[in-house]
Amino acid sequence: MATVDAVETPAAEPDEDGPPVHVDVPELTKVLDGPYAEVRADVRKELARHAEVLEQAETLSRDEFRERVKDVIVEIAESGQAGLGFPAEYGGGADIGASIAAFETMGFGDLSVLVKMGVQFGLFGGAILHLGTKRHHDRYLADLIKGKLLGCFAMTETGHGSNVQALGTVATYDQGSDEFVIDTTTAAATKDYIGNAARHARVAVVFAQLDVGGERHGVHALVVPIRDEQGEVLPGVEISDDGLKMGLNGVDNGRISFQGVRVPRDALLDRFATVSEDGTYSSEIENPSRRFFTMLGTLVQGRTCVGAAGISAAKVALTIAVEYGDRRRQFEATSDDEEERLLDYGQHQRRLLPLVARTYALSFAQEVLTSRLHDVFSGITTDEVSRRHLESRAAGTKALATWHATRTIQECREACGGAGYLAVNRFTALKADTDVFTTFEGDNTVLLQLVAKGLLTDYASDFSDLDQLGMVRFVAGLAVDTVLEKTAVHKLLERVKDVLPGIEGGEQDTGVLDPEYHLAMFRFREEHQLGGVARRLKRGVDSGMNPGEVFSRVQDHVIAAARSHVERLVLEAFVERVQELPEGELRDVLNAVCDLHALSSIEADRAWFMEHGRLSSQRSKAISREVGALCRRLRPVAVDLVAAFGVPRQVLRSPDLLSWGENTDG
Amino acid sequence: MATVDAVETPAAEPDEDGPPVHVDVPELTKVLDGPYAEVRADVRKELARHAEVLEQAETLSRDEFRERVKDVIVEIAESGQAGLGFPAEYGGGADIGASIAAFETMGFGDLSVLVKMGVQFGLFGGAILHLGTKRHHDRYLADLIKGKLLGCFAMTETGHGSNVQALGTVATYDQGSDEFVIDTTTAAATKDYIGNAARHARVAVVFAQLDVGGERHGVHALVVPIRDEQGEVLPGVEISDDGLKMGLNGVDNGRISFQGVRVPRDALLDRFATVSEDGTYSSEIENPSRRFFTMLGTLVQGRTCVGAAGISAAKVALTIAVEYGDRRRQFEATSDDEEERLLDYGQHQRRLLPLVARTYALSFAQEVLTSRLHDVFSGITTDEVSRRHLESRAAGTKALATWHATRTIQECREACGGAGYLAVNRFTALKADTDVFTTFEGDNTVLLQLVAKGLLTDYASDFSDLDQLGMVRFVAGLAVDTVLEKTAVHKLLERVKDVLPGIEGGEQDTGVLDPEYHLAMFRFREEHQLGGVARRLKRGVDSGMNPGEVFSRVQDHVIAAARSHVERLVLEAFVERVQELPEGELRDVLNAVCDLHALSSIEADRAWFMEHGRLSSQRSKAISREVGALCRRLRPVAVDLVAAFGVPRQVLRSPDLLSWGENTDG
Repeated sequence: MATVDAVETPAAEPDEDGPPVHVDVPELTKVLDGPYAEVRADVRKELARHAEVLEQAETLSRDEFRERVKDVIVEIAESGQAGLGFPAEYGGGADIGASIAAFETMGFGDLSVLVKMGVQFGLFGGAILHLGTKRHHDRYLADLIKGKLLGCFAMTETGHGSNVQALGTVATYDQGSDEFVIDTTTAAATKDYIGNAARHARVAVVFAQLDVGGERHGVHALVVPIRDEQGEVLPGVEISDDGLKMGLNGVDNGRISFQGVRVPRDALLDRFATVSEDGTYSSEIENPSRRFFTMLGTLVQGRTCVGAAGISAAKVALTIAVEYGDRRRQFEATSDDEEERLLDYGQHQRRLLPLVARTYALSFAQEVLTSRLHDVFSGITTDEVSRRHLESRAAGTKALATWHATRTIQECREACGGAGYLAVNRFTALKADTDVFTTFEGDNTVLLQLVAKGLLTDYASDFSDLDQLGMVRFVAGLAVDTVLEKTAVHKLLERVKDVLPGIEGGEQDTGVLDPEYHLAMFRFREEHQLGGVARRLKRGVDSGMNPGEVFSRVQDHVIAAARSHVERLVLEAFVERVQELPEGELRDVLNAVCDLHALSSIEADRAWFMEHGRLSSQRSKAISREVGALCRRLRPVAVDLVAAFGVPRQVLRSPDLLSWGENTDG
Repeated sequence: MATVDAVETPAAEPDEDGPPVHVDVPELTKVLDGPYAEVRADVRKELARHAEVLEQAETLSRDEFRERVKDVIVEIAESGQAGLGFPAEYGGGADIGASIAAFETMGFGDLSVLVKMGVQFGLFGGAILHLGTKRHHDRYLADLIKGKLLGCFAMTETGHGSNVQALGTVATYDQGSDEFVIDTTTAAATKDYIGNAARHARVAVVFAQLDVGGERHGVHALVVPIRDEQGEVLPGVEISDDGLKMGLNGVDNGRISFQGVRVPRDALLDRFATVSEDGTYSSEIENPSRRFFTMLGTLVQGRTCVGAAGISAAKVALTIAVEYGDRRRQFEATSDDEEERLLDYGQHQRRLLPLVARTYALSFAQEVLTSRLHDVFSGITTDEVSRRHLESRAAGTKALATWHATRTIQECREACGGAGYLAVNRFTALKADTDVFTTFEGDNTVLLQLVAKGLLTDYASDFSDLDQLGMVRFVAGLAVDTVLEKTAVHKLLERVKDVLPGIEGGEQDTGVLDPEYHLAMFRFREEHQLGGVARRLKRGVDSGMNPGEVFSRVQDHVIAAARSHVERLVLEAFVERVQELPEGELRDVLNAVCDLHALSSIEADRAWFMEHGRLSSQRSKAISREVGALCRRLRPVAVDLVAAFGVPRQVLRSPDLLSWGENTDG
């Protein structure tokens, strides 16, 4: 038994830290709701009013449900909640931040409704607003805000989703008729997965390669009518249905192809580039790739919204699973004559409570993102760098939030056992509807590469035209030190050093519950991984390897670095929000939640920290024990923590799970 | 830049090891198919014949689909494939192993068909066969094997799924009429989630607390008619529908309650216990808990089948995702004028190929399990210990295989982007149908606790009656050394020492590609974690803590230990299978797949190995690099590796994904 006996005796289980916690639920909801509490309250009422949609998703036929969802959208549009982000002169609310908060809160309800709203007001409406000029605004905005004109956003093609720059649809300027001619050049250039296309859209914003006088100017957007007032598909346009999907079947996704479809010259959304009557193409942005990325910048709103919706969906799942875990009993454990509540089992705490904590973290990160987006899109912040930071933050938060949603919903379903499999308990719809979030509005993996690219080129606009291959060549062309100095890395490093001077000396003196320690760990990881990526890219190219091959080999490292960057932003948002709160019980509780988030994140990546000399095996184990202790400490307020999410009871459904122990006696 | 510069320069990327690999696909399929190649071939034909069911799952109404699935089952029953596991005298095939292999292969097809088969032939049929005696066999088996008599397995109740011992249904012997009276005593005692109950079952095997002369004898099973020949529900029986589920909607799950339903005395399935006419209860097994666990032992077949089905579902998902990844291109990378195939990206290899490798590992582990099950249930192996090992292995393999299925299907869906979200591409059904596998036929978490219990008590039959609480008390009652000696741990330890004498001296000399090194690492982890659990349980109770509280705190450790045990069994199965092969290309390829499985498993848990002094940070990083190198090495044969799974093309559907590049030009 030598080996077994030789093992160090583990320390005693740590006790729960600090005094017992207590939560003032309405106060905590206020903290979570942030600056848009009023808008969120309105949306909660609207959700409760339309709660029957959740059941109709199961009882109606697909066709009927699509019509029902459309009707709900139009009703919501009439309430004004859909137009919050549009200018007042067209009937909008002129508050972009509020529109994001409203959308986020809508994520508690049926997600077909949410996504169809996103398509109509975010993608279609957003394209008209941000890519068009006054003429287009005058022509479309008032009607689209009211839901009188339904449209779609025809960007993705069967052959190109992530690589939008390579789209195959062409818009050729015909000077004779002063029109653009839209053509789907190959089967792979068919517009695909387009929401609102199969049934309801009357116009499409079509992204196509602009061809003027035989010269290609890259991807541009044009408004193309696809159906007449009676809903008949127009000549030259062919539309088919994408058919049954895993979820979101209230949204009519379809395929569109164009054969010689003609639109007037002013159909071009010409905020960033115009074509004059004599066939002259002009743009304020000379570099074609930079122009392209500027246009694509409008996607930032969609990504922000998808991430927000993912967080809300996770909140719904956690509310059900935590309440059920608090009610449901199984097996005798601490008592011989009463079964134990599931949430009193350590494993059950471990599977749910860190997810609750991470949901809090992402909520606060989302609040920061919404506020930044508001500032940039309202013209409060106007510099180019802030816009690029915003794009990066939106991409990264979307990736983390949607993966978190997928994981959380799955864990919650399993934590509810067989009952979680019944559709009435919401997990069915939550899983199926949110599943596509990880790949739409930008595949998460591709989005994280975008984040990494920004970091490695310090968001320099000169390099915005570089794809991953260009990024490799760019980084390889500089000395490593120059890369690091040019990048965001060195700024971070200063902060790590300031805060944690002893970090290079092995074991830290700082306590594992000190937020400065958590932040220093997150910053160190980000900085180190980015430096490592730069080094590997450079070494690969220097050794004569094909840059594409170099990228392929370093790709997991690239993605890890981007993820660490976003993780750091998320933790900072949480820590800062907690530190803003007045001293008191609420702050104490949120501090513990923040600790749980930070430590369970470090625990999940503790191998990396050990490999890089930032954790001894002793401290690593201490962190795992602390995560267990924090779970036990927060267990008594677990139900309060999810209640504070403020998910309306009507949309939770789950009648048997949420009344467990009242109607049943098991 | 000091910190960055101070970091060690990582080694160069390792080159792919060994010569280029080549795969003889039919030969590899033979290896995977194992001893039941013929049965599997027959089932593949049957699946192709019924492939339209997959589409009907989407196009038919729920009612119509349920009927369709029932008809398919009856057709399959007529083919003889459903009765392979039953005695020949009733029309069965008298080959239990073959019946499991057939079921596993059926997992490539529609899973409602599979699960309804499992309910009818595995659970209902299995209960009659294993819990009943000749009288019951004569009465039911011939008809049930032919699909003429449909039945259900009424064990789970609304209030008790995992804790079957606490079921609330009661069967009271009424000596006056020589009948049992079945009663649902509370709402929570309603039988729930019962497959075949809502529509098709005419009889139910009902698990109830047996009450004879006022004395309770624990849970027993009785055959209770619930519908007449016309399908009308019988008096005293109440049946309702569980409604729409996340998936498996071709199976009619329902709730059943009983009010004074009378059945003759011989309705008791009396292989393990009988009641005589004069109201005397007798059983060969005196200890009531042991009797209970013996009866529950029949669940082993169901668990084996669910795990097998999970592996097959993962194979379907991987076949589609890997083929698509090999065809689909996106973004220029290694060439400026052609986009790169997804599977040539390092990240894409990393997300799919270790899952392929693990699927191979689980396949071989499943083959061992099937063979052990065959031996025990065919009476070839008759000792008690083998039976308990089998139960443990079935529980553990089911847990790992079904979690693997959930994870793999999700990853494959995401790897196919938006296209993966369309129902025609199978991921919709795969995700929805398999989701419940992780919690039915035993919640995975509870199953792993069962495995741990077996290990800590060395499967001693005396302790089979202990639940988790009893396990804590049992372990706490012994000296730690005694526990370790009593348990399976010490046997393992000897093997680790024999193989890897230097293991206590820190860094190993053994190469990272040596299977003996992999096995030693897996064995060390298992042994160490089990020892740690014993120690923590004992220390907790010794310190005066409530045993239930002790269990709750150590629970994640208990589950980790069980998981490590099963991981070791899985790796051993793979290594042994490879070593049996003759020298040659096939063996070389499988060796590389086995290495990838072992190293990516070690990588995933490398934090633990570092924490416990079994990996230096240098070697840990070397293992990660080696995983990348193995992925690159196997990339050229990735499509062959999934082709060898032998999933019939007809059930893959996914027309656009699998013809990518032929009909489309993107």
